[in-house]
Amino acid sequence: MDWEYIDLHAKQWVKEAGERIRSSFNKTLTIEFKSNPNDLVTDIDKEIEQFFIRKIRAAFPTHKIMGEEGFGDELTNLDGIVWLIDPIDGTMNFVHQQRNFAISLAVYENGIGKIGIIYDVAHDELYHAIKGKGAYMNDILLPPLVEKPLSESIIALNATWLMENRRIDHNLMIPIVRKARGTRSYGTATLEMVFVATSRIDAYISMRLSPWDIAAGTVIVEELGGIVTNLRGEKLNFLTQDSLFVSVPGLHETIMTDYLKEGKW
Amino acid sequence: MDWEYIDLHAKQWVKEAGERIRSSFNKTLTIEFKSNPNDLVTDIDKEIEQFFIRKIRAAFPTHKIMGEEGFGDELTNLDGIVWLIDPIDGTMNFVHQQRNFAISLAVYENGIGKIGIIYDVAHDELYHAIKGKGAYMNDILLPPLVEKPLSESIIALNATWLMENRRIDHNLMIPIVRKARGTRSYGTATLEMVFVATSRIDAYISMRLSPWDIAAGTVIVEELGGIVTNLRGEKLNFLTQDSLFVSVPGLHETIMTDYLKEGKW
Repeated sequence: MDWEYIDLHAKQWVKEAGERIRSSFNKTLTIEFKSNPNDLVTDIDKEIEQFFIRKIRAAFPTHKIMGEEGFGDELTNLDGIVWLIDPIDGTMNFVHQQRNFAISLAVYENGIGKIGIIYDVAHDELYHAIKGKGAYMNDILLPPLVEKPLSESIIALNATWLMENRRIDHNLMIPIVRKARGTRSYGTATLEMVFVATSRIDAYISMRLSPWDIAAGTVIVEELGGIVTNLRGEKLNFLTQDSLFVSVPGLHETIMTDYLKEGKW
Repeated sequence: MDWEYIDLHAKQWVKEAGERIRSSFNKTLTIEFKSNPNDLVTDIDKEIEQFFIRKIRAAFPTHKIMGEEGFGDELTNLDGIVWLIDPIDGTMNFVHQQRNFAISLAVYENGIGKIGIIYDVAHDELYHAIKGKGAYMNDILLPPLVEKPLSESIIALNATWLMENRRIDHNLMIPIVRKARGTRSYGTATLEMVFVATSRIDAYISMRLSPWDIAAGTVIVEELGGIVTNLRGEKLNFLTQDSLFVSVPGLHETIMTDYLKEGKW
């Protein structure tokens, strides 16, 4: 399979989709005052997903597609070549901020990530990786991730997981945050994954994400030596919703061993 | 006092300081690998504060100056005209991300905010307001802030305040977060204040900030009809550290009355 050929097409489509999204901004700071911003967003989400599906079907008619908006295929396995699409990750940010959202596109072969592309539209930063060929931000080759102690780490996570909640015992999470240098929360899984890839943050934790939220980021982070699992330390399956724990090396092991070890939950 | 004349100078200095900071970035994604990034940051912080102080002393020799790095005057009151300077707010972001940090400059007269300038250097977005003359992002006049119910609001706050801590009973904060639509945390008070000013978020809560962190943002947010107090609902004094609660109108009253009312803490 010529992954570089596929990657080249995919990047062009993502850039074109980004241009469509940008031109949908009427004007900074006014979009929010529309009568029904949710409608608008849904329209763009749908339009962009359909745009990708048309392109993929035309260029690669045998490939399968899994998309957030449901215009793709109903998949029960990841056999063959599968595209995973999130046309706009970070919808709430898209509406309120017109930044901190991204397009995410991944190509997997028999469940193995081959291509990951995440486009931070507002900042015109395109992150991408082909498995085994390096990860890039625009044209800059990203350096491998380096180990970091928890006490010097910045961790992105939603405040919800530090309060009593249905997904995890918050008493497991609190000591991690106490030990870390700081926390952040941006409200967009795809960008929080590439922020780990670029050492803007050191780890990202979330409790419930879908395959299209995490498929592209996984390829990029793993290509740089970062670790991507669920919060039990297990490999992700990219067919169901799951928790997510993305981290630079070393830190992942520290947190799993010292804070989230088996039997604790 | 010709506030527009002062504002014009101050904006030019802020832009020039932003240029100096940008040129200090060796190259995106490499700054972090320097032997001692903290030294570097301290150098730039100090250099920029001294730059502002030289400019202010030359142009307005009778004005007083309060700066984060301590090169200004030792003030025990806010009589006369006082400049409040934060050369780089969001130092950790500056080092790790080369974004999400800002320059903050305010001018107060007898304790009343007259000019507020916050420059998001990485995004080249300059927010400023002259009391009574409107607030702007670059050349865009910002619309007045509108009321919002808590259930539709995004609140920025540090995760620390949702865990047991020395500053506030976290059991007061948790119900606010449960009711809100979402939370964010960016790690920079000045930008979190202008994100309220531009409706990117709806409220910002912090437990301990210094006058130079909040003086400029207060002028900008109040000019748009937003509310700025400490977490007890009291006016800030801009001489001591205090908690901070910035919000669009309506939402501030809701949170104070229903969640933080007197006697609860």
